[in-house]
Amino acid sequence: MAQKVVGTGARSGAPVVCVIGGGQLARMMQEAAIPLGIELRALVEAEDGSAGQAIPYSTVGAADDRDLITGWVGGNVVTVEHEHIPDPILREIDSRPSADALRFAQDKLVMRSELEAPHPRWYEATSRAEIDSSIAALGGVAIAKTPTDGYDGKGVAVVRSAVDVPWEYADGERILLEEKVEFDMEVALLIARRLSGEMKAWPLVQSTQRDGICYEVIAPAPVDQALLDRATEIATTIAEQTGVVGVLAVEMFVVGDRLLVNELAMRPHNTGHWTIDGAVTSQFEQHLRAVLDLPLGDTSPKAAWSVMVNLLGSDLEDPRQALGAVWEADPGVKIHMYGKEVRPLRKIGHVTVSGDDLESVKARAHEAIRILEGK
Amino acid sequence: MAQKVVGTGARSGAPVVCVIGGGQLARMMQEAAIPLGIELRALVEAEDGSAGQAIPYSTVGAADDRDLITGWVGGNVVTVEHEHIPDPILREIDSRPSADALRFAQDKLVMRSELEAPHPRWYEATSRAEIDSSIAALGGVAIAKTPTDGYDGKGVAVVRSAVDVPWEYADGERILLEEKVEFDMEVALLIARRLSGEMKAWPLVQSTQRDGICYEVIAPAPVDQALLDRATEIATTIAEQTGVVGVLAVEMFVVGDRLLVNELAMRPHNTGHWTIDGAVTSQFEQHLRAVLDLPLGDTSPKAAWSVMVNLLGSDLEDPRQALGAVWEADPGVKIHMYGKEVRPLRKIGHVTVSGDDLESVKARAHEAIRILEGK
Repeated sequence: MAQKVVGTGARSGAPVVCVIGGGQLARMMQEAAIPLGIELRALVEAEDGSAGQAIPYSTVGAADDRDLITGWVGGNVVTVEHEHIPDPILREIDSRPSADALRFAQDKLVMRSELEAPHPRWYEATSRAEIDSSIAALGGVAIAKTPTDGYDGKGVAVVRSAVDVPWEYADGERILLEEKVEFDMEVALLIARRLSGEMKAWPLVQSTQRDGICYEVIAPAPVDQALLDRATEIATTIAEQTGVVGVLAVEMFVVGDRLLVNELAMRPHNTGHWTIDGAVTSQFEQHLRAVLDLPLGDTSPKAAWSVMVNLLGSDLEDPRQALGAVWEADPGVKIHMYGKEVRPLRKIGHVTVSGDDLESVKARAHEAIRILEGK
Repeated sequence: MAQKVVGTGARSGAPVVCVIGGGQLARMMQEAAIPLGIELRALVEAEDGSAGQAIPYSTVGAADDRDLITGWVGGNVVTVEHEHIPDPILREIDSRPSADALRFAQDKLVMRSELEAPHPRWYEATSRAEIDSSIAALGGVAIAKTPTDGYDGKGVAVVRSAVDVPWEYADGERILLEEKVEFDMEVALLIARRLSGEMKAWPLVQSTQRDGICYEVIAPAPVDQALLDRATEIATTIAEQTGVVGVLAVEMFVVGDRLLVNELAMRPHNTGHWTIDGAVTSQFEQHLRAVLDLPLGDTSPKAAWSVMVNLLGSDLEDPRQALGAVWEADPGVKIHMYGKEVRPLRKIGHVTVSGDDLESVKARAHEAIRILEGK
């Protein structure tokens, strides 16, 4: 019965933002675009996918289809949900962030070699022999990373020898070898930079990974002020150096009183989902403001603590059937479902709980996820 | 270039809610539906209207087209954006709220004669002679109201004689005459009732009208606890008596320490828009939870004070072009635009500001509206 009606284009006067990517980030960007009267147009992989379900003005197409994309964008502002868009297309459509900025997020070797920031020790190798010598130089164990296309634990492995690299590797291919940092905590600093230069950061958050995928985020990170200030300084320097436009996420390791940059993302990021419910301005609204070159919003938290936990797959056929069970146990949980089919370890939703007592907020968020997981 | 893609129906497992009405309420309901993974389907007047712009699964049709509506609803849960849907259709589709509940909001004479609540003094008249005698009994001046179809100041007039009634009136037609209450304040209590009976109220708010249209809302209303309790008691009694499902708005006059019921609405209401930014659970999320018979959410405010001010028309051709100017002055203002064309006194958006100091919060909200009005 339900049918999407066919629209006729932008309402006169509506600011338009085109986003390449049809996943949950475009979907959550739409939640921020509607109240602002911004017409979000999405280039999606499937019309009824996560973003297509929520964005009337969506077009089906591939993120590397140059002719389609350049025509579709027209003269409008365009941003990206992920980094996997070919460089020549990014340049032709004048994307925000730009192709030059996105290089730092697309290629981990560019990040390590060019970024002015504290890094773990690292080596570039281009052969099995170099992989082994790099591992030896790093003390016999290293983290191997594909320079491009890795995400959510894919393209990352702990290695003690070249034979441990779990993906197909051929001599001549570039590979990044990093020291296996014995960190005290993983943290992320999100900052937005507006086209004309203004920047605003949210508080530093702590993130916990499970199988290489972000699982839990605590805002703010329970660390001292000196570390918070240092993290903001590092992210600000990176935002300025790269000239990023939109949200930049800088994931870092805490080792004693030191911070080391782990990863970069130049788009709204999993570690910023807590801002939807927990901050005056969400990362999705801020991203839209930044790419449209509008003044950035207040990044203050609305509660002493917010905890976000990801829903990574579920034993239920559709966890949306468990909304009632979650709220029966705790009516104050904020649930976010992405409209995606369940698959093991796939990010299909998240919950956020805010309050005054960290331990209780954490327990409530995890209990909600346990119910949505069908455990 | 932008085109809505044609969808193929509900994702398996998605809770579905059909809403009759294509205005800003359905649009804001969609903002709440997306994160919950609820598939909202809207029956809209125009595909690119306020709701159609935001809801991919929308169908164009009239709210009195019985065949279309019954087929479109199928066996799904259905709710309404306004009260102007013929009673037989409401009964056939088993609407939430029900036809029996909606009578109280559709017909002010039903409300006055049947509702167990404190009312202003009132008379029903069915002729010019009775209008005049009713006015005399009310002290020479009265508020005349059409029993049905009035809203936003339409169908309401101060009268001193039958000749003052500003709309076409013929003997035999029913008309409501009420005392002109010299109130100290206008307030509204919003409460949600779940299908199976659970109820939760938000704090009482103060509303200020301009030309009969809600203009400013202050949450919570600056009144003493006894009055807050009494207002909640009145609204709870009304919710129970009417068996409303979804959000009920009870607008009341404060006269000294008394409360008198002015109007009822059985849907999310203008006096509840502050809850989007200012409460843990917004009225739109709560309405969806109530009609789907899911446990109701926490209605606590997130800040000491929230002030909402409506944007009623504008001197600008499209106030969305002034987003930057508003945020240049005050980056913390939450702006909500409805995607509607500008017309004098038309509700085309609202802003909400939250904070600790009422006077500053009010001033900030009004300054933002002044900029959006192009004054």
